[in-house]
Amino acid sequence: MLSEAVPFCSKYWYHIVIFFVCFCYFYGDIHRQIKRRISPIFTKVFKYPDGIRTDQNEALDEVTDIIDNDEEEFMESALPKDLKHVPYQYVKPNEKELLRRANKFFEITNARRTIRYFDEENVPKEVIRYIIKAAGTAPSGAHTEPWSFVAVSNKTMKSRIREIVEREEEINYKKRMGKKWTSDLRPLRTNWIKEYLTTAPYLILVFKQVYGILPNGKRKVHYYNETSVSIACGILLTAIEYTGLVTLTSTPLNCGPAIRTLLGRPSNEKLHLLLPVGYPAKDATVPDLQRKSLSEILTEIE
Amino acid sequence: MLSEAVPFCSKYWYHIVIFFVCFCYFYGDIHRQIKRRISPIFTKVFKYPDGIRTDQNEALDEVTDIIDNDEEEFMESALPKDLKHVPYQYVKPNEKELLRRANKFFEITNARRTIRYFDEENVPKEVIRYIIKAAGTAPSGAHTEPWSFVAVSNKTMKSRIREIVEREEEINYKKRMGKKWTSDLRPLRTNWIKEYLTTAPYLILVFKQVYGILPNGKRKVHYYNETSVSIACGILLTAIEYTGLVTLTSTPLNCGPAIRTLLGRPSNEKLHLLLPVGYPAKDATVPDLQRKSLSEILTEIE
Repeated sequence: MLSEAVPFCSKYWYHIVIFFVCFCYFYGDIHRQIKRRISPIFTKVFKYPDGIRTDQNEALDEVTDIIDNDEEEFMESALPKDLKHVPYQYVKPNEKELLRRANKFFEITNARRTIRYFDEENVPKEVIRYIIKAAGTAPSGAHTEPWSFVAVSNKTMKSRIREIVEREEEINYKKRMGKKWTSDLRPLRTNWIKEYLTTAPYLILVFKQVYGILPNGKRKVHYYNETSVSIACGILLTAIEYTGLVTLTSTPLNCGPAIRTLLGRPSNEKLHLLLPVGYPAKDATVPDLQRKSLSEILTEIE
Repeated sequence: MLSEAVPFCSKYWYHIVIFFVCFCYFYGDIHRQIKRRISPIFTKVFKYPDGIRTDQNEALDEVTDIIDNDEEEFMESALPKDLKHVPYQYVKPNEKELLRRANKFFEITNARRTIRYFDEENVPKEVIRYIIKAAGTAPSGAHTEPWSFVAVSNKTMKSRIREIVEREEEINYKKRMGKKWTSDLRPLRTNWIKEYLTTAPYLILVFKQVYGILPNGKRKVHYYNETSVSIACGILLTAIEYTGLVTLTSTPLNCGPAIRTLLGRPSNEKLHLLLPVGYPAKDATVPDLQRKSLSEILTEIE
């Protein structure tokens, strides 16, 4: 079998290589990668022979990241063409008040911790609704608001989500992810058993809409959808903390497709974060982490 | 010249194809793409012959997105191995209080608008410091805190940043981005003149550290750095609003490398957002946008 294959391969090896390339090209998005990597070279040589645009390569990467789709597909406008502009209503605080508020907000957010042990006590659904409404005030690329939230309080559904997450997490810990990943997480004492997914009264699942769907069925570009949804999640986490509840910021690795199917979400949505929300268990502990100091994260140019 | 090239090309065309493939492979990250696209097929066939892991392809994409680097490079732990766990301090609010706070937080965030017209009046630097400190409380993958903030109040530096942004934005509007992009932004009345970059007393530049650098010079994995930094930005925007200042959430397309060089930031950092911060101009207007209703963004499963 092998001895037969060898002369065949040596004679037709370039056909095999070409087949492989074509296969990759049509199977994956390698054509996009080639466009990304090769076209900047020509742009640099022909369009910017003075060499000003030395960062052209990186720059075109960025453009491709945002558009990242056949542009012809997306010909519907995101905003009404006759959008009115109105005066911005503003009450200016004095400097003392600015400082007081900035300090207070820091204290609120600084008290936030990721909690892994929840109490079963229920949370009023109106509270969850206000928290989601707050997240929905986030800015987004061209005001596309590319987010969907699913709040699950149903016990059976929470159990089914837990099953999916635990199944995948066990594979993540045991097989998929490197030793590095599991050893990085070990000090946090995490494993693939996720009891909080059934204990917490609410699971908030945040989906990002990688593109929008217009009433006429056409697609709408969602610029910077990843960043926009994550900013909304930052507001969501702050809303939970401000309200007096706790959560755990989790990215359920590899569970996206199964959970999306379970919840019947459309194909333009991808699971971004999964947040159990509720009260902490009475004996809840947190790792004794320190945050970086201001001088480690801030540079001032005065 | 051309007639000479034709027989050469037809004789050695497969060498040319192979050279092209090798070139792409070594030039770009196409080998990673091939690994991503091809390896799941083998995994599916050999590891999951029962077909359970039909989403394996998408799943492996996710793993690759997180690791996205040669794992051997990153052998330092992100957290101390002997990390202590301590009781979580918590004061439980009653249901009425929960509802009051959730409602109040929604009202604060709902008043936030993106402002394009700023007043020149200065803002105390302590206020900016508290705002950045609040952003630094964000959660991050394995507590890697992959963010750097640069607060620029220096006039010359603001002018130089404005020059970079306007030069790139003019190219974005006129050449790089499609008609779709410019027409999507037209209702917001934006163009490549960014006066606010010199008017606003502060520019906060948010950088994401795509990897960390340990004291011994080794690299440290920054899991989910994009999501983590964007969540920090969500908290940052809320801090600005809570304090009583205004900002504009901008992603300075293609300006990253030039601004990074100007500010002398290290090569592991990428510009993520650029936020002018200050008071609104007295005659500031905002587009009369509506946000999606709660029923459009929330699904409840009770």
